Amino acid sequence: MAINKSESVRVAIIGASGYGGLQLVKLINDHPHFEIASLCGERSAGKSWNDINPFIKIPVDKKISSSNVDEIELASDYAILSLPNGLSSQLTPLLLEKGIKVLDLSADYRFKSLDKWKEVYANEASKYPRFDYELCEEAIYGFSEEFSKEISKSRLIACPGCYPTSCLSVLIPFLKQGLIESDGIIIDAKSGTSGGGRNPNEQLLLSECSESIKPYRVTDHRHTAEIESIASQFVGHEVNLQFTPHLVPMVRGILTTVYARLKDPGLTAEDCKIVIEAFYKDQPFIEILPVGIYPATKWVKNTNKIMISIEVDKRNGRIVLMSVIDNLLKGQAGQAIQNLNIMNGLESDIGLPKMTFYP
Amino acid sequence: MAINKSESVRVAIIGASGYGGLQLVKLINDHPHFEIASLCGERSAGKSWNDINPFIKIPVDKKISSSNVDEIELASDYAILSLPNGLSSQLTPLLLEKGIKVLDLSADYRFKSLDKWKEVYANEASKYPRFDYELCEEAIYGFSEEFSKEISKSRLIACPGCYPTSCLSVLIPFLKQGLIESDGIIIDAKSGTSGGGRNPNEQLLLSECSESIKPYRVTDHRHTAEIESIASQFVGHEVNLQFTPHLVPMVRGILTTVYARLKDPGLTAEDCKIVIEAFYKDQPFIEILPVGIYPATKWVKNTNKIMISIEVDKRNGRIVLMSVIDNLLKGQAGQAIQNLNIMNGLESDIGLPKMTFYP
Amino acid sequence: MAINKSESVRVAIIGASGYGGLQLVKLINDHPHFEIASLCGERSAGKSWNDINPFIKIPVDKKISSSNVDEIELASDYAILSLPNGLSSQLTPLLLEKGIKVLDLSADYRFKSLDKWKEVYANEASKYPRFDYELCEEAIYGFSEEFSKEISKSRLIACPGCYPTSCLSVLIPFLKQGLIESDGIIIDAKSGTSGGGRNPNEQLLLSECSESIKPYRVTDHRHTAEIESIASQFVGHEVNLQFTPHLVPMVRGILTTVYARLKDPGLTAEDCKIVIEAFYKDQPFIEILPVGIYPATKWVKNTNKIMISIEVDKRNGRIVLMSVIDNLLKGQAGQAIQNLNIMNGLESDIGLPKMTFYP
Amino acid sequence: MAINKSESVRVAIIGASGYGGLQLVKLINDHPHFEIASLCGERSAGKSWNDINPFIKIPVDKKISSSNVDEIELASDYAILSLPNGLSSQLTPLLLEKGIKVLDLSADYRFKSLDKWKEVYANEASKYPRFDYELCEEAIYGFSEEFSKEISKSRLIACPGCYPTSCLSVLIPFLKQGLIESDGIIIDAKSGTSGGGRNPNEQLLLSECSESIKPYRVTDHRHTAEIESIASQFVGHEVNLQFTPHLVPMVRGILTTVYARLKDPGLTAEDCKIVIEAFYKDQPFIEILPVGIYPATKWVKNTNKIMISIEVDKRNGRIVLMSVIDNLLKGQAGQAIQNLNIMNGLESDIGLPKMTFYP
Repeated sequence: MAINKSESVRVAIIGASGYGGLQLVKLINDHPHFEIASLCGERSAGKSWNDINPFIKIPVDKKISSSNVDEIELASDYAILSLPNGLSSQLTPLLLEKGIKVLDLSADYRFKSLDKWKEVYANEASKYPRFDYELCEEAIYGFSEEFSKEISKSRLIACPGCYPTSCLSVLIPFLKQGLIESDGIIIDAKSGTSGGGRNPNEQLLLSECSESIKPYRVTDHRHTAEIESIASQFVGHEVNLQFTPHLVPMVRGILTTVYARLKDPGLTAEDCKIVIEAFYKDQPFIEILPVGIYPATKWVKNTNKIMISIEVDKRNGRIVLMSVIDNLLKGQAGQAIQNLNIMNGLESDIGLPKMTFYP
Repeated sequence: MAINKSESVRVAIIGASGYGGLQLVKLINDHPHFEIASLCGERSAGKSWNDINPFIKIPVDKKISSSNVDEIELASDYAILSLPNGLSSQLTPLLLEKGIKVLDLSADYRFKSLDKWKEVYANEASKYPRFDYELCEEAIYGFSEEFSKEISKSRLIACPGCYPTSCLSVLIPFLKQGLIESDGIIIDAKSGTSGGGRNPNEQLLLSECSESIKPYRVTDHRHTAEIESIASQFVGHEVNLQFTPHLVPMVRGILTTVYARLKDPGLTAEDCKIVIEAFYKDQPFIEILPVGIYPATKWVKNTNKIMISIEVDKRNGRIVLMSVIDNLLKGQAGQAIQNLNIMNGLESDIGLPKMTFYP
Repeated sequence: MAINKSESVRVAIIGASGYGGLQLVKLINDHPHFEIASLCGERSAGKSWNDINPFIKIPVDKKISSSNVDEIELASDYAILSLPNGLSSQLTPLLLEKGIKVLDLSADYRFKSLDKWKEVYANEASKYPRFDYELCEEAIYGFSEEFSKEISKSRLIACPGCYPTSCLSVLIPFLKQGLIESDGIIIDAKSGTSGGGRNPNEQLLLSECSESIKPYRVTDHRHTAEIESIASQFVGHEVNLQFTPHLVPMVRGILTTVYARLKDPGLTAEDCKIVIEAFYKDQPFIEILPVGIYPATKWVKNTNKIMISIEVDKRNGRIVLMSVIDNLLKGQAGQAIQNLNIMNGLESDIGLPKMTFYP
Repeated sequence: MAINKSESVRVAIIGASGYGGLQLVKLINDHPHFEIASLCGERSAGKSWNDINPFIKIPVDKKISSSNVDEIELASDYAILSLPNGLSSQLTPLLLEKGIKVLDLSADYRFKSLDKWKEVYANEASKYPRFDYELCEEAIYGFSEEFSKEISKSRLIACPGCYPTSCLSVLIPFLKQGLIESDGIIIDAKSGTSGGGRNPNEQLLLSECSESIKPYRVTDHRHTAEIESIASQFVGHEVNLQFTPHLVPMVRGILTTVYARLKDPGLTAEDCKIVIEAFYKDQPFIEILPVGIYPATKWVKNTNKIMISIEVDKRNGRIVLMSVIDNLLKGQAGQAIQNLNIMNGLESDIGLPKMTFYP
């Protein structure tokens, strides 16, 4: 049942001045059925949004407030949290208690097991004591294309990480249908700098990153556990894979190159393309490219799309899966809005861009 | 036996106006023992070098000439060819006949078997008829660190491709010593745009490449065969590996991320670091980074270095080998000069930069 | 009087595969009242749009055709020409004769005097013989904010150049109201590479432009004459100004920094801000920034906006006018659509983006 | 009288981990007559240089120390200070007292009048109390090409700012010879991000700066006063000029475009080129380009050069002066080494790069 178009869904954005928050402000501002109910941010509390964000002014200016649950309750139906890992878990239970549905962009509810989270996010766990085991079990992992049914009925969505979104989009179809070996999977991922956030950081200065590419957190990036955890659900046993992220001198975009072994090495790239096309039939944001056409991150910039290309090396039966996303949209804020559409019974693509301005 | 310092080695640069040629002009100009004997280029023949290259003026200007073998013979001891694939093979035999030693930057002499070359470079083979089987056998593959002995005695050096240089630098030590499985190797390589050359090309416009990363020639890049061919020499059987190049929005640099399985999964990253340090002992251009420090291409920009880092995933016994080079120097012109040093009995690092201007 | 929303205005895009054409395809595709009637392009004639533009697929694919006037007449109400200078003038009269209204993105109708055009575009004039003096007089210069009344009644719009749009947006208000001296104006303009078009060009390779800024066509860029010609209309005598364009290592955007002398050196930046705010009252795409906030091109990327900032040097009475636009939108295709809105009695901002995705 | 080549000049680098310091480390390391005596830096005191700078390792590692004047006295003949404005003035007198000659990269000694400095650098003046009026008078402004005689005899060099170096290089010749009007000069300058330093700063993140250009500190950049102060010396009265800096999405480089009025509007660009060539005769780092060739910052990247081009607009007698430098070399650390060469009776270009690696 879709919402009545005359009345907007009221959304609070908690953590509005980071890059995720900036996307949310634009997306909700442009959305035909949603409206910005509150803008919360500790650093800028008390200031006018338009004064400090002249590059993304909203038609009716708002004062940024600190995250007061009672005020959010009065003003909002939903809250989207764009907060540091760990901090989200301190606010989420309070919001849910007030009847506010929560879409969380942090990693706090991405693991069914809180203990697993505490293992992977040990630093955050030591800083923020957590006992919300049940919420972790209840939360729905918000990869929209796979879990839309559950999302539509949930009050707490753990929006996926940017890398996991990109990786899982190509892994799930082939793992679920048992077409690739679940061991020996190699993921080589490449991200723009906006994935590192907006906080000042020497490593992310243009002077440091420009004209350079480098790997980071080799063998120990925390998204490894997230990808493995979700992938495991589809094969019925623990998946152990190799994930290496790289920092690319560009602002937005993730390209993921996945290497796996086909169970049936006789399959061609065309065969595999047919499989994944069928899997994602009618999904408005997924585009499978013709065999031999490989995607550039620029092709999905400023959109909520996932572009996918598949190649098979006939010599050795290995499949190469490539996917590109805009890390701040489908990889973060865009997917949150997609989920918010689903939660409100709307078409999942309402208010979300599908075509880039090229170049 | 070193050359007498009072007399310079005279070097002809054939194909001087491409990016490879530009590096050669600078490197030879700055070199204490080499001098530019002739600058040959069909497109610019008849023009003054300094007139058309105001950004890289040489102290004594030279007229660019077309490649006349007799003139080159008079002026030069060595010729470095920076020509399109196939074209090199038309000039090389003539130069050798005149007693000129040749360092070829093209792929024409990188395969011991001319038939293999004709298979891999089929287009070029159809355009340039070749029968120089013996020269192919005679030519030495110019990966300086491994083949310096042979290089020092050769009159024809097939300088390695940029990607192969980067890949082989980390593969050879571990394959040769039998520490990694030779099957299932995955190479995910990332290159700046200068690898695509200086000819106008829509795909390489800043408007197209900037703010974007993309894979290309997935499963069928021709450097795959080159890497496999050299790697095979060290394991005694044919190696079949996965090589995927990516185009990165930067001018110079290649980062290669190699995934392989350790034969002994008990080895640690520190163990492997010790192995490769010993392998490259006293090599002036190789630097093995401390475990946990990963290289950025910027760290070797404008140098002839290879920076290497090694990581092992304790969970699954997989080794991740990372190497960065400047594709136009160690990946092309710099390695040619390194080889020219070796051919002349000089220290291999004379006249070649080892420290970058950072950032 | 607005068009009936149920029936779309049919628009032919002539020259669809250049950067201007690509913007038009997206803008018209997204527009609620316009539809793409034909896509014409000589290079790609006969091919399917979606096949050769996988990064900007349209929902209902179209075959690209060559520019047949009869076919365009049948399918279209309007034609937007994104053709090389000179070539537009060969097609425009034929289209007008058939009753098709024309929005021309070239320089062919930007001068009231054809003789002036022949002087400024001498090369093109020698290639394309022209006698359409009357059309030149008839054509309306499509700087939407100033000439909307004339645009609404015209059948031929000469859409302004990218640099002139940026420059005139800040010059017209102050020249028209006699607040600045019309002599001694200095314009220092900076543009991204997409202004140079999509044709392969060594100068525009990422390898050449990246990490570099340079001036070009100093004292003789052809937009100088265009800016002077329009500026002169507002002061009643010939204006002679200095215009220097620079190439910036980025894809999209123009920043123009204009230096002029205030007639009344007692005016403050705040005074001048009030003047220009009043001048552009109710213009949806113009935003005057608070004094002390200077615009970055990124702030208007992928929008049709002009952001303007004004500073006055109290020491010497000089005014510094700064404006930023997206060269491919407000500087080209976006302004064409804005004009098409005006011609159809629509609000000028229908279907045109006003808020960027930041960063 | 030149130094004895057998013994190196010992140089302390104070503030080694910023971008200026990194250049100094490389330049002195590569220099045939200078050696690094101490590396001082508060933030990294106690750490090994090579441990924290794996991208710019020095052959013999050094421990970074805090700036102890007694230790510096023992180890060094010269000190180059790469410290924040104001802080330099606290250390410089102490070093001079110990007989250490100082090259200061800050602005602290660039004004003959300490009161002027206190006016322009008011914030720093309130933080660091200063009474060193005489040192300000004594210090020599280190624009090497103009003041080499004074530099050679001085014990305190105030190395020029990056923008002033670029601007003065083209202004001094024409002001000194009275060829241009000294009023109405407009300087539009463009700099890469490394000019903003290495400290974390949201404004300098790649995500913020990339794909964007913007003006900053319009009408009130502090280099204005520095340029005016030096320019005034050559005309005998106070010069008042317009200086506007812009931030360009690139790491290194400054392009300055200067607009001035010729006193004799009959002069051509060729005439002016002859004038400036004569002025800079025998200067190894100055290159005057042929008329019609305009410099790109890339042409001088990683060199100590200044490339200059001159254009005259015949229509209005205005001269356009363009100069490019590498802001971290000729604009900072390179010029310091050039001055150190001069102070030691060496050729000014010893150990300083003159040819870029292109592209």
